[in-house]
Amino acid sequence: MTTLYELEQHDDFIARHIGPSDADTQAMLQTVGAESLDALINSTVPASIRLNAPLAMDGSRTETEVLDYLKQLAMQNKVNKSYIGMGYYDTIVPPVILRNVLENPGWYTAYTPYQPEISQGRLEGLLNYQQMITDLTGMDIANASLLDEATAAAEAMALCKRSNRLKTDKFFVDAELHPQTIDVLKTRAQYFGFELIVGNPHTDLAQHEVFGVMLQYPGTSGAVGDIAALIKQAHDKKALVCVASDLMALVMLKAPGTLGADVVFGNSQRFGVPMGFGGPHAAFFATKDAFKRTMPGRVIGVSIDSHSKQALRMAMQTREQHIRREKATSNICTAQALLANMAGFYAVYHGPEGLRKIAGRIHRLTSILAKGLQQKGVELANDTWYDTLTLNVGEQQQGVLYQYAVDAGINLRKLDADKLGISVDERKTGADIAQLFNVLLGESHGLDMAELDTAVTAEGFGGIPSGYARDTDFLTHPVFNTHHSESEMLRYLKRLENKDFSLAHGMIPLGSCTMKLNATAEMIPVTWNEFANMHPFAPNEQTVGYRAMIKELEDWLVEVTGYDAISMQPNSGAQGEYAGLVAIRRYHESLGQGHRDVCLIPSSAHGTNPASAAMVNLKVVVVECDDNGNVDVADLRAKAEKHADNLSCLMVTYPSTHGVFEQDIVEICEIVHQFGGQVYMDGANMNAQVGISKPGKFGSDVSHLNLHKTFAIPHGGGGPGMGPIGVKAHLAPFLSSHVVSPPDGIAPGNSAVSAAPYGSGAILPISWAYIKLMGTEGLQRATEMAILNANYMMQRLSAHYPVLFRGANGRVAHECIIDIRPLKAASGIDESDIAKRLMDYGFHAPTMSFPVAGTLMIEPTESEPKEELDRFCDAMIAIREEIRKVQDGEWPADNNPLVNAPHTLDDLTQAWERPYSQAEAVFPAGVSPTAKYWPTVNRIDNVYGDRNLVCSCPSVDSYR
Amino acid sequence: MTTLYELEQHDDFIARHIGPSDADTQAMLQTVGAESLDALINSTVPASIRLNAPLAMDGSRTETEVLDYLKQLAMQNKVNKSYIGMGYYDTIVPPVILRNVLENPGWYTAYTPYQPEISQGRLEGLLNYQQMITDLTGMDIANASLLDEATAAAEAMALCKRSNRLKTDKFFVDAELHPQTIDVLKTRAQYFGFELIVGNPHTDLAQHEVFGVMLQYPGTSGAVGDIAALIKQAHDKKALVCVASDLMALVMLKAPGTLGADVVFGNSQRFGVPMGFGGPHAAFFATKDAFKRTMPGRVIGVSIDSHSKQALRMAMQTREQHIRREKATSNICTAQALLANMAGFYAVYHGPEGLRKIAGRIHRLTSILAKGLQQKGVELANDTWYDTLTLNVGEQQQGVLYQYAVDAGINLRKLDADKLGISVDERKTGADIAQLFNVLLGESHGLDMAELDTAVTAEGFGGIPSGYARDTDFLTHPVFNTHHSESEMLRYLKRLENKDFSLAHGMIPLGSCTMKLNATAEMIPVTWNEFANMHPFAPNEQTVGYRAMIKELEDWLVEVTGYDAISMQPNSGAQGEYAGLVAIRRYHESLGQGHRDVCLIPSSAHGTNPASAAMVNLKVVVVECDDNGNVDVADLRAKAEKHADNLSCLMVTYPSTHGVFEQDIVEICEIVHQFGGQVYMDGANMNAQVGISKPGKFGSDVSHLNLHKTFAIPHGGGGPGMGPIGVKAHLAPFLSSHVVSPPDGIAPGNSAVSAAPYGSGAILPISWAYIKLMGTEGLQRATEMAILNANYMMQRLSAHYPVLFRGANGRVAHECIIDIRPLKAASGIDESDIAKRLMDYGFHAPTMSFPVAGTLMIEPTESEPKEELDRFCDAMIAIREEIRKVQDGEWPADNNPLVNAPHTLDDLTQAWERPYSQAEAVFPAGVSPTAKYWPTVNRIDNVYGDRNLVCSCPSVDSYR
Repeated sequence: MTTLYELEQHDDFIARHIGPSDADTQAMLQTVGAESLDALINSTVPASIRLNAPLAMDGSRTETEVLDYLKQLAMQNKVNKSYIGMGYYDTIVPPVILRNVLENPGWYTAYTPYQPEISQGRLEGLLNYQQMITDLTGMDIANASLLDEATAAAEAMALCKRSNRLKTDKFFVDAELHPQTIDVLKTRAQYFGFELIVGNPHTDLAQHEVFGVMLQYPGTSGAVGDIAALIKQAHDKKALVCVASDLMALVMLKAPGTLGADVVFGNSQRFGVPMGFGGPHAAFFATKDAFKRTMPGRVIGVSIDSHSKQALRMAMQTREQHIRREKATSNICTAQALLANMAGFYAVYHGPEGLRKIAGRIHRLTSILAKGLQQKGVELANDTWYDTLTLNVGEQQQGVLYQYAVDAGINLRKLDADKLGISVDERKTGADIAQLFNVLLGESHGLDMAELDTAVTAEGFGGIPSGYARDTDFLTHPVFNTHHSESEMLRYLKRLENKDFSLAHGMIPLGSCTMKLNATAEMIPVTWNEFANMHPFAPNEQTVGYRAMIKELEDWLVEVTGYDAISMQPNSGAQGEYAGLVAIRRYHESLGQGHRDVCLIPSSAHGTNPASAAMVNLKVVVVECDDNGNVDVADLRAKAEKHADNLSCLMVTYPSTHGVFEQDIVEICEIVHQFGGQVYMDGANMNAQVGISKPGKFGSDVSHLNLHKTFAIPHGGGGPGMGPIGVKAHLAPFLSSHVVSPPDGIAPGNSAVSAAPYGSGAILPISWAYIKLMGTEGLQRATEMAILNANYMMQRLSAHYPVLFRGANGRVAHECIIDIRPLKAASGIDESDIAKRLMDYGFHAPTMSFPVAGTLMIEPTESEPKEELDRFCDAMIAIREEIRKVQDGEWPADNNPLVNAPHTLDDLTQAWERPYSQAEAVFPAGVSPTAKYWPTVNRIDNVYGDRNLVCSCPSVDSYR
Repeated sequence: MTTLYELEQHDDFIARHIGPSDADTQAMLQTVGAESLDALINSTVPASIRLNAPLAMDGSRTETEVLDYLKQLAMQNKVNKSYIGMGYYDTIVPPVILRNVLENPGWYTAYTPYQPEISQGRLEGLLNYQQMITDLTGMDIANASLLDEATAAAEAMALCKRSNRLKTDKFFVDAELHPQTIDVLKTRAQYFGFELIVGNPHTDLAQHEVFGVMLQYPGTSGAVGDIAALIKQAHDKKALVCVASDLMALVMLKAPGTLGADVVFGNSQRFGVPMGFGGPHAAFFATKDAFKRTMPGRVIGVSIDSHSKQALRMAMQTREQHIRREKATSNICTAQALLANMAGFYAVYHGPEGLRKIAGRIHRLTSILAKGLQQKGVELANDTWYDTLTLNVGEQQQGVLYQYAVDAGINLRKLDADKLGISVDERKTGADIAQLFNVLLGESHGLDMAELDTAVTAEGFGGIPSGYARDTDFLTHPVFNTHHSESEMLRYLKRLENKDFSLAHGMIPLGSCTMKLNATAEMIPVTWNEFANMHPFAPNEQTVGYRAMIKELEDWLVEVTGYDAISMQPNSGAQGEYAGLVAIRRYHESLGQGHRDVCLIPSSAHGTNPASAAMVNLKVVVVECDDNGNVDVADLRAKAEKHADNLSCLMVTYPSTHGVFEQDIVEICEIVHQFGGQVYMDGANMNAQVGISKPGKFGSDVSHLNLHKTFAIPHGGGGPGMGPIGVKAHLAPFLSSHVVSPPDGIAPGNSAVSAAPYGSGAILPISWAYIKLMGTEGLQRATEMAILNANYMMQRLSAHYPVLFRGANGRVAHECIIDIRPLKAASGIDESDIAKRLMDYGFHAPTMSFPVAGTLMIEPTESEPKEELDRFCDAMIAIREEIRKVQDGEWPADNNPLVNAPHTLDDLTQAWERPYSQAEAVFPAGVSPTAKYWPTVNRIDNVYGDRNLVCSCPSVDSYR
């Protein structure tokens, strides 16, 4: 007999996203001793916060339906030829990189390389990126990327302050910076307590004592200013100098490092990363050796492994927010690893010669344009240029010509009331320049492209001022001079990919990271032309589809969270925290309570929380936790009362970073409100709440949402992320707007926190599609299954490892912490040994030593099937038995499979004199030789690497 | 100083496609002793055939330009909702399969699994496919796919003839077969000398003595006929019975195997493979155990490796054309491996329950449609159905309703003069059926979908006749019941992918296979909606872009080959041979010389040549070769003269299968023409001619072109291929047309050779893009570099291995043969040992023992960089030294790294008692542990597998 289903199977996707089958779910419920999923949730989540009705959203939809609908929205976008520039340029993503990196789960589902032995591929990619940045900027050291150019500027400003002993709080900003950069600097400066002086450095700098100066090279108008003179002037005043720059321009221009700059930063987007309506892209950041230990963000370094072979890893991982916590001047966590890798590969593929071709051509086309316009009497505002011209067209003509261009499918930049800006990029051709002549001069202009080309060629192209043409080599390392045919590039990418462990290999049970499925259907729209190739400042008429999609996503997030408004601007979780705290500060200021500056933070908080608080000048007061890991309510009340006059807010994660639903959360929020404070609820653990409870309804005022956790954006091997915030209505007027292109639904006027109005627009379709696919029932089911999966693992592991914290009825939320400290005391084996040994079993380790040192925090997510959970538990149990052999003295404490882990192919072919067999080493229980994932290096020595810091590509021989 | 380039770098792609850099090219020229590339070509290619002018084509274009232009063409297609059916259905490609198989070079660049130790991933995928086919058809054994449903029908007919001792040449064909199937059967039957009787088997079969009967189930009209009775009737007459069927229907219908069918075949396209304007798709073919050794095509079987572990490989590789050559009744070589894998994965992902849902829903929607139409008085021609209804609408209404539908974006099928056909597929929804009601009945029809659904549900859906509902299980193997979440499926695909060696790992120097770069930019358009989702019989107005693209491609191929017309229909090289010979036969018939039936074939020919000749009833006369491997001109002249009255043609490969440019080719062609014959020049080696010589200009009359060799279509792990033919003007009237949708530019009337008018339309954009990207200069340069690469390798290897054949001035063409026989005599090591040992060095072997037993034929193609050529030569030289150790007795003849190759991870962890070290075994010179490619099984025992033939999925335990 045919089983009778619904006629349409709209819910097909739910079972694709959620790992366990219905039968598995029943078996797991039995293991955890719950009658039903609902019973499990009832016994886990406090009744006081449980929703009593499903989310008011559409039901689930199939992948086909969702993609069809999204395509309709996408088609409402109009992708014009962009000459807007301002840090965002059309680019050609080499197809081999597009398909095999950006569209490849082997690259995009990996996590931040915290476990470097199984991450050597992307670490090499990121090291290439750093090498490229140091080469092009002429600096000593570069990091592995920041979030965007504007926040990189803010980080540069903070670095200047950290690194300069001058007592002034003044910072000078060249008016030639992109306006959105200045806007973000304004926000940051205000809450750091800096005075920002925006002006013309050539005329104004002399009058000010400042701790730092920020220049742009070339300037936003296109001019290539005499920054050497300005740097000297600033240095003479003991100010540090930061230079915003452009990688493509630096192929042809003298490197700022050779001119004395202390920091060089900018956007690497135009190295083969689509504009994507503002992101994600990798901002670059390079500095002098003297400042390397105060540099923000992540940096990849070269170290050695236990066989003294070269191995890469993140260097100096303990950074600003960990060391200085509540005194931090940076809260940045994630990088833009996927995009930095892409930009690095763009350089690898083109090589220095290819880049010279591309960059030279852009400049030549710009010079042809300049020559033609000048011949026809158009006045240029800049008499030097690399790729950008500013035309003085007058107020009357500005709108007319702008509209002519739009009608021809061309976007120009409007500057001031009387100028037009034109930036040329690698996609533009001679035909495009000819079209610009037609648009700007009328079709009877009579200019001849070939004649113009001959003229500018004879003049040496002309835009770069004397003394500013690049005269130093770059990208001389062999990696940039080898992989120039597509076959070679493909094989290089594949070789690197196959070194790394990603979700395509197995589960990544990182607690607090929510490594769920990133479904292909969610990823497909990201590279659609209509989404990928949109400039963030394109006029609204051209971005109808984008904005409609974002509006829907915002509405859904409002429904999911119980907040009243969403700001999409923050492009990482840390940025979201910052944006939320800024909103709280602005709110208090609006009430005349700007003095409120105490931020309560439980001792269990993520290091980023106090760092974010510090960045908005809040004083952190730590609230204690009780033995069960819950906030000590009495201590909270006492401290809130004590600081009642100055209480700004509480920052609290829910469910807690200890992985439990605290029963008293409603009371905790009430206490804070009672004393005039606001509640900032960190949304990192939102995956345990969707469809079950709404922070905006049980007492929180603002949260950031990690779309890259709960809402299915992949982690990209260490970024991108997205951290939009939800706020209650009273905070909505204090969300950040954007000086160039104000986002819909946000009150204008407040300065920005990120470079682009909607953060990283290109990845929002992922979360949109995830929600649309799952629908009301799917979203709730995902949360319930995430909780079931965690409790099931907890149940299986608890017989072998102590579980550190449990909530009501002995339940955990969506993750659980197992305590390795007793085992370490008994055997000497620590959590790190277990993490490395898990690699031999074919797993990525859980989160180590967060939030409690000496523990492992496991988060399976709803996407892992029971078989995979069991495979992991079996491995953990087998490891426990291995530890027992060490305890029992069967294996020496300093020579056993745990302390020697991970094992590599190298181990196998070396003389084997160990108390365990080769097979025990590399094929422990359950690991098949035909499906073995191999770490490519042995355990890495972090101390060696930090003591001998090398953050550039090592010599060729060492690659072999 | 800035180097001065052309303003536009249109030729960027050429250096991406061609491996060696300019500097490498100079070094290589020096090695081969040529002053320049031109000098090399002059000394290699006979002056008599050299072109003296570049091809009259456009110059090269960048990837961006080419994709932009092709997108414009694509947008001229209009993709309607298709209800045409006839073997082609809209389908939903699961995104995880789309991205990770069809769009993944790890899958699509692999070759046919001739080296099974490095192909276990796709062999497992193909075994799944075979299991799925045997399950659904209820047959004993299935092959790993054929080219399309119509040629599968022709193969079934031939199998019946081979397997039946009845003396009749009559074959009965149900008129309920799809018309294009009957059309192809006509062609085949004519040249086999069979009499085809097309009729209604229920009424007509009784009157005929036939060797076979072919039925369709369900029929093309949609009816589910009583085939059990017909099969019995045919069997009673000792006729064999072939049943054309549909996999989706078989989910719900009784399996033909359980009803007694001898062969079941059809198209697996609707299992997740886009329609693609006709292909490529995998046709399935299943038969009884009794016929397994006469089954056409490739079949995957289970065997064991040298450690007695289970291992998969192609079974019974020596097939029809090899065994019987000039008596063969099948010439099929390639399969549609990539598409068969996709269809198999579709079943793995959905599982039996998922397929029941999908198939059930299609039937339910069809029944709702039937019920509604009947209620409104529309007469149905079929009173049974699975997914297809034929409506008797009358002559007047046929055109009107058809046009209404087209206006609503819907394609129906026109049948006869008075009927419309409607086939429902998995993309269709209730809303689509409601739309059909509106179109067919007018919007005021008053039908209620819910009521109709209730009614048909109550009736049990109604279309399937009593006794024909499926009552047997299928897909019970665990592989079809495990990977149902996307994470599981992704990991399964990845695990399989990582077992296989593809061009993403390194060179595949298979002689005569031309494993060049399949560039990403060429692959991207294949999955564009406008190309992927087009029905092959969509009306011409909707396929403007497709046909314009094909026309351009044809024009370019005309220019490249010197022929006058191109037929795109043949969808493999062997099909091309067949189509070319059919054209020759038709031509001679038109001249009243139908008796000409002698085909001269040099002794060096590929086995497919004589098989193709046999299939068109030609008698093969072998022409001898001289010691240099060249055609013995005197012998040719003698035999041509001897058979002058009956000479049909010469089949000759150029450059020869021996890898040299024969100097006498012009004379050879002249001799054949002199005696009334035609010259068929096998285009397998066209990669040595493009831009240098044109077969159509130096004496050939017809060639097939392997687009999957010379023109960059990837090999897909064993297909798809494309084998269009070029002909001189006098043969053009004899190209095959198509009964349903005649291709442009082909004279109507001649019956078809393939199911679709343009063969596998979806992959034609690949060759189009390749030519457009390379342009005149790029195409010629590719040929020259292919020849340089081959001569460079020959030069390096010749000091270590004897080179078997050389042409003028000691040059080879684009490939070279090294002779292993002397080495074998001296050491016992044979070409197979070398091939397997190359795996340990990280290479795919060259072609073994073709065209000469005991040799290796190496073809590097132009895409391999010098570094990779050197890596391969170094490996071969190192292997030569290893052989010397065996020769010298340092290693025993039966225990050395060569005879034990390939080595696996299993070897490493077993007790090691061999005269060489583990490191020598698996990391020989130049192989790095961090970039090691691992064969996943040891050497496979082919004899064991053929003796113990198992072609279905083995038990679960054996997978672990």
